[in-house]
Amino acid sequence: MGRSKGVRTIRRVRIVGKMQSRKALAGMQRAAALLEKRGIELVLDAATAHALGRRARRRSRKSDAAPADLHVVIGGDGTLLSAAREVAHRPRPILGVNVGSLGFLTETSLEEMEEVLKEVLEGRYAVDRRMMLQAILRRGGKTVARQPVLNDVVINKGALARIIDLELTIDKKFVTHYKADGLIVSSPTGSTAYSLSAGGPIIDQSMGALVITPICPHTITMRPLVVSEECLVEIVLHSDQTETYLTLDGQVGHPLREGDRVQVRRDRSHVLMVRSRRKSYFEVLRHKLRWGER
Amino acid sequence: MGRSKGVRTIRRVRIVGKMQSRKALAGMQRAAALLEKRGIELVLDAATAHALGRRARRRSRKSDAAPADLHVVIGGDGTLLSAAREVAHRPRPILGVNVGSLGFLTETSLEEMEEVLKEVLEGRYAVDRRMMLQAILRRGGKTVARQPVLNDVVINKGALARIIDLELTIDKKFVTHYKADGLIVSSPTGSTAYSLSAGGPIIDQSMGALVITPICPHTITMRPLVVSEECLVEIVLHSDQTETYLTLDGQVGHPLREGDRVQVRRDRSHVLMVRSRRKSYFEVLRHKLRWGER
Amino acid sequence: MGRSKGVRTIRRVRIVGKMQSRKALAGMQRAAALLEKRGIELVLDAATAHALGRRARRRSRKSDAAPADLHVVIGGDGTLLSAAREVAHRPRPILGVNVGSLGFLTETSLEEMEEVLKEVLEGRYAVDRRMMLQAILRRGGKTVARQPVLNDVVINKGALARIIDLELTIDKKFVTHYKADGLIVSSPTGSTAYSLSAGGPIIDQSMGALVITPICPHTITMRPLVVSEECLVEIVLHSDQTETYLTLDGQVGHPLREGDRVQVRRDRSHVLMVRSRRKSYFEVLRHKLRWGER
Amino acid sequence: MGRSKGVRTIRRVRIVGKMQSRKALAGMQRAAALLEKRGIELVLDAATAHALGRRARRRSRKSDAAPADLHVVIGGDGTLLSAAREVAHRPRPILGVNVGSLGFLTETSLEEMEEVLKEVLEGRYAVDRRMMLQAILRRGGKTVARQPVLNDVVINKGALARIIDLELTIDKKFVTHYKADGLIVSSPTGSTAYSLSAGGPIIDQSMGALVITPICPHTITMRPLVVSEECLVEIVLHSDQTETYLTLDGQVGHPLREGDRVQVRRDRSHVLMVRSRRKSYFEVLRHKLRWGER
Repeated sequence: MGRSKGVRTIRRVRIVGKMQSRKALAGMQRAAALLEKRGIELVLDAATAHALGRRARRRSRKSDAAPADLHVVIGGDGTLLSAAREVAHRPRPILGVNVGSLGFLTETSLEEMEEVLKEVLEGRYAVDRRMMLQAILRRGGKTVARQPVLNDVVINKGALARIIDLELTIDKKFVTHYKADGLIVSSPTGSTAYSLSAGGPIIDQSMGALVITPICPHTITMRPLVVSEECLVEIVLHSDQTETYLTLDGQVGHPLREGDRVQVRRDRSHVLMVRSRRKSYFEVLRHKLRWGER
Repeated sequence: MGRSKGVRTIRRVRIVGKMQSRKALAGMQRAAALLEKRGIELVLDAATAHALGRRARRRSRKSDAAPADLHVVIGGDGTLLSAAREVAHRPRPILGVNVGSLGFLTETSLEEMEEVLKEVLEGRYAVDRRMMLQAILRRGGKTVARQPVLNDVVINKGALARIIDLELTIDKKFVTHYKADGLIVSSPTGSTAYSLSAGGPIIDQSMGALVITPICPHTITMRPLVVSEECLVEIVLHSDQTETYLTLDGQVGHPLREGDRVQVRRDRSHVLMVRSRRKSYFEVLRHKLRWGER
Repeated sequence: MGRSKGVRTIRRVRIVGKMQSRKALAGMQRAAALLEKRGIELVLDAATAHALGRRARRRSRKSDAAPADLHVVIGGDGTLLSAAREVAHRPRPILGVNVGSLGFLTETSLEEMEEVLKEVLEGRYAVDRRMMLQAILRRGGKTVARQPVLNDVVINKGALARIIDLELTIDKKFVTHYKADGLIVSSPTGSTAYSLSAGGPIIDQSMGALVITPICPHTITMRPLVVSEECLVEIVLHSDQTETYLTLDGQVGHPLREGDRVQVRRDRSHVLMVRSRRKSYFEVLRHKLRWGER
Repeated sequence: MGRSKGVRTIRRVRIVGKMQSRKALAGMQRAAALLEKRGIELVLDAATAHALGRRARRRSRKSDAAPADLHVVIGGDGTLLSAAREVAHRPRPILGVNVGSLGFLTETSLEEMEEVLKEVLEGRYAVDRRMMLQAILRRGGKTVARQPVLNDVVINKGALARIIDLELTIDKKFVTHYKADGLIVSSPTGSTAYSLSAGGPIIDQSMGALVITPICPHTITMRPLVVSEECLVEIVLHSDQTETYLTLDGQVGHPLREGDRVQVRRDRSHVLMVRSRRKSYFEVLRHKLRWGER
C-alpha cells in the first residue's frame, strides 16, 4: 500500500452524488460549473445529467465510469462506497465531498470543495491507495456472488433470530467457532466503520490487513483478530433454522443458508482516495473520533 | 432483595420441561417418580401429563401454575424464562434443572437432580429472590403490550437495516440518544446473558438495578449504564424506514414503529430461584465464565 | 439513597480551595465577598484566612469543618475529594466550583458561581446524597488504616513490578482470583473516574452499589462486577516480592505487603452535593462524556 | 514476514534456561543428554555449564550465543524474551520449552520436548519469523538507550503517580495526546501479552505491524491503533512531577523525565521460532485463550 502523489493530467471528470439530497445536488451543480469553466469535460450518467440540466456524455452507468480521470463523489460515506465498487476495476482518484454530519471517506466539506477541486486540477494533491476486499459467497460448491468491497463483509443474524454459529478458518486452517450475533471482516478503511462500533481496533488506512471482529460474542474471550492481507479468510455458517444475512459495505444483502461459505481476501483492485494537502489521515481520525478532547 | 430461606411445606409440585428434548423428558419422568414415591401431588398441564403418561391434574396451563408449592423446570435457560414469566403473578420457588451445556438459570445438573430435590422437599435449601422487569410497549398513547420479563428487554434492528436512533429518558429526564444496532435493558439476572455479550457488567443477582447496554453503538463513548430499580427507563424509537423489533427475554418479538415508546421498570412480581446449599452465586459465575482459569 | 431538597437555613459558610491556583484563589475571594455582603459568617482555616486577607474564625482544620452550614469548595475534583473526606463525619451540603477543564464533582463553573451561590442561599437548590465507602487495611489481624472514601479504593502494582495476584471475597465468600495490574473498588460517584478508564460501567450516583473493576486483567474473561451496598468486599494480596500500593481517592497511598487484607464497605457517612436546579446528573454526564455527539 | 521451513543442518545447540527452577534444570539436563547422545555439540555459558555439570564451551555469554545452530530455551516466556534479545543480532531458530502454566512463546511442553527436539534435529519443523521492535530512548537530543524488543515497549506511571500526558506522533506527524496510566507499543508477538490485557486486538504473528494500546485512558474514545511496520512511532512524555518508567519486554526499566522521547520502529533483526509440525499458531491461541470453549 502506501501513499503516493497524483500526477495524471485531469481532462475528464465524472460527477456522481446522492440524488435524494438537495445539498448534494447543489454541490454537484457547483462542481459542474467550476469544471466547465476550466474546460474540463464532464462525464455524467443519464440520471445525473438530467438532474443537473446537462447532456449525458455516456450512456450506461458502467461504461461512464471508465474514461474519467477523476471521480467527484458528493454525498455520504454510502454514496462513496457505491462509487468505489463501481470503479474498482479501473482505479482513478476519487474526491469524496461530504454533505452530512459524518464522513470518514468523504472528508472534504462542501465549503472547501471548490478550493480543494482547484488544487486537485492543478495537481496539488496526494492520493491514498486503499486496499479493497473481495467477497465470495459459495454454496454447494458454486460461487453464488462475488464482489469488491471497500469497508466490510458482515454476516449477522436477524433481529428475532437466535445466536448463530460461525466457523472461522484462515488459509484453510481452523481458527475457532464463534457463537455470536455475527462477524465482521473489515479492511483498514472499514476499521473505523462498523467494526469500531463492535469493539474493533483502528487500522492505519495505508496498511494491508484484514480485521475480524465478532458482534456480541457469547464467549467473552473472543477478541478482534488482525491478519495479513495475504490471508484467505473463510467463514462457514453452521446454524440452520435461523435467519442470517451477508451484507457487503452495508448495502448489498444476501440471505444465507446453513453450510454457506463466505470467503474474503484482498481484491486485486484498490481505491485511490484524494487527500487534500491540508489534512493528514490522523487529523481526520482525531476530528471524527474527538480524540484529544474529553 | 436479598436471600431468604424457603420454609413453606411442599405438598404439590409442578413439573414442566423442554418437550422436544429426550433428556429433558427422561429427567421429568425421574422427577415425577421421585415425587410420587414421596406422596407429593403432581401438577401437570395436559401436554406434559400426556408425555409423562400421567393424568393432567389441572386443565388450562395458566391455572395449573397457581396452586403448586414448587416448580421443577427441566430444560435450558429458555425453558426457565418461559416458566418464570408464567408464574410471575404468584411467586413460588423454582428449581431449574439443566439438560444442555450452559445454564446460568438452570444451575442444577440432571445428575444432581434427585439429591437436590430431596434436600428441597426436606426444606434444606435457600431461595434467591430475583427482581423481574415489566416491559410496556406504548404506541400513540395506548399500551400495546405489557409483560413481566426476567432477563432482558431488547430493541434491535433487522440484519439488513441501517443504524437506529433511540432516545433514552430516565424518570422522564432526557439522558441521551443512541445511534446503535440496538439497546438492552437488563435485570441483574439478565446481566450475564445478552448484556454481557454486548459489553455489560455483571450485576450481583441479589441487587435491585437495571442495566442499560447499547449494542454496537456508533458513538464510542457510550458505556453501559446501571440505574436504580426505582427508575422508569423509557426508550423512544426515532428511526422511521427501518425494520426494528422489541424482544422480551429473547422469546417474544414485537415489530416496532417510529415513535413507539418502550417503558421498563421493576415489576411487582419476582422469581424465587431454589439454590442448592452446595453452590453460591459466585461459584456458578466462576464456573460459567471460567473465572480463575486462563 | 435518593435526591432530597436542601432546607437548612445557611448562616455560616466554609470556603476552602486549591491554594496553589490563582484562579481558585480569585474565586474564593469573590465567594467571600458575596457571602460577607449578605451577612453570612465565613468559616476559614488559618491558611485560607491568610490567603484571603481575613481573620481565621476557627483554629484547627478539623474543628473548622464542623459548624458550617455549607461548604464551598473551589478547585478540581481532587480538592473536593479531600474536603468530602474531612466533613464526612458531619454531612453538610457541599458546593463544588470548578477551576480546571474537567470536573464530575465540581460541576459549577467559576462563571456561574455567584448566581448558583445566591440560589443556594435562598434555598433554591437540590442536594444529591452520595454514598461513601469505608476502606480498612488489615495486617496480621490488626487494623492499620481506616478511612472514608468518596470515589474509589485502588490496589495497584508499581510501574516496574510484575502482575499481582488478588483474591476477592464478598460477604466472606470466595469469588475469584485476579491476576492483574490492580483492582478498583468504586462507589457510584467514583464510577465515572478511574473505574471508567479501566472499562467499568457508569452507575447512577443516587444508587447504593459498589463496583469492582480489574485493571488490565491477565484473564480476559474478567468483567466489572457490581454488588449491593450491603456487601463487604475483601481483597487479599497474595503476591510477595512485588511493590504494591493501596490508594484512596487517588490521594492517600499505603504500601501493601503479602497477606494484607483490604476491606471495603459502605461508610455510615455520606456526602451532600449541592446540585444547581439547572442541571440534572445526566446533563453533567452527557457534557463530560460528550454523549450524544460524535 | 511469513513462515518458512528450517533447512540448516544442526551441529551445535545452545541450551539456556531458568536457573532458579528445578523443573527447568531437569529439562535442561534431559535436553543435554539427548543432544550429546546424538553427537551434537553443546554451547553453554559458564553458569549453565556449572549447573548441568558440564564444561562451558564458550566464555562470555554474548559470544556463546553466536555460533549455535539452534537455541533451546527452557523456562517461561520471560526466559525466552531474554534469550531472543541476546541472539537478535544473529537469528537462529529458537525452540521454547515451557515449564510453567502459561506460555505463548514457549509452546512446547516439557513432556513433548524430546520428541519435538528429535523432529527438529531431523529437519522436520517449521520456523516462524517474528518481527522485533527497536526501542530508542532519546533525552536532550541524545540516545540514552537502544535495544531490540520482542514483545512490547511500555511507558507507564508509578502506582502513586497521577495520570500522565503522552504525545503520539507517527512518521513525525502528530496523532493525539493520551492522558492515561500509560501506553503500550507492541509487536504482533506481544499482542497476546500485555496489550491484550489492556484491551488490544490479537495480531497474526506472521504480520508486520505495530500495535499502540493505551492503558486506562482518561478519554474513553481512545481505541487501540494498528500501524504498518514501516512506521516510526514516537512518544513524548509531557508530565513533569510524576514518576514514570519505560519498560522493555517487561524486564528492563528506565525512569523517564519530562521531554523524554521514546522511538519505536521495526528492528532489522528478527526471531526465528521453531514451531512443531503438530501445532498451528491458531491452535496455540485457541488453547491459551480458551477459544471455542465457554
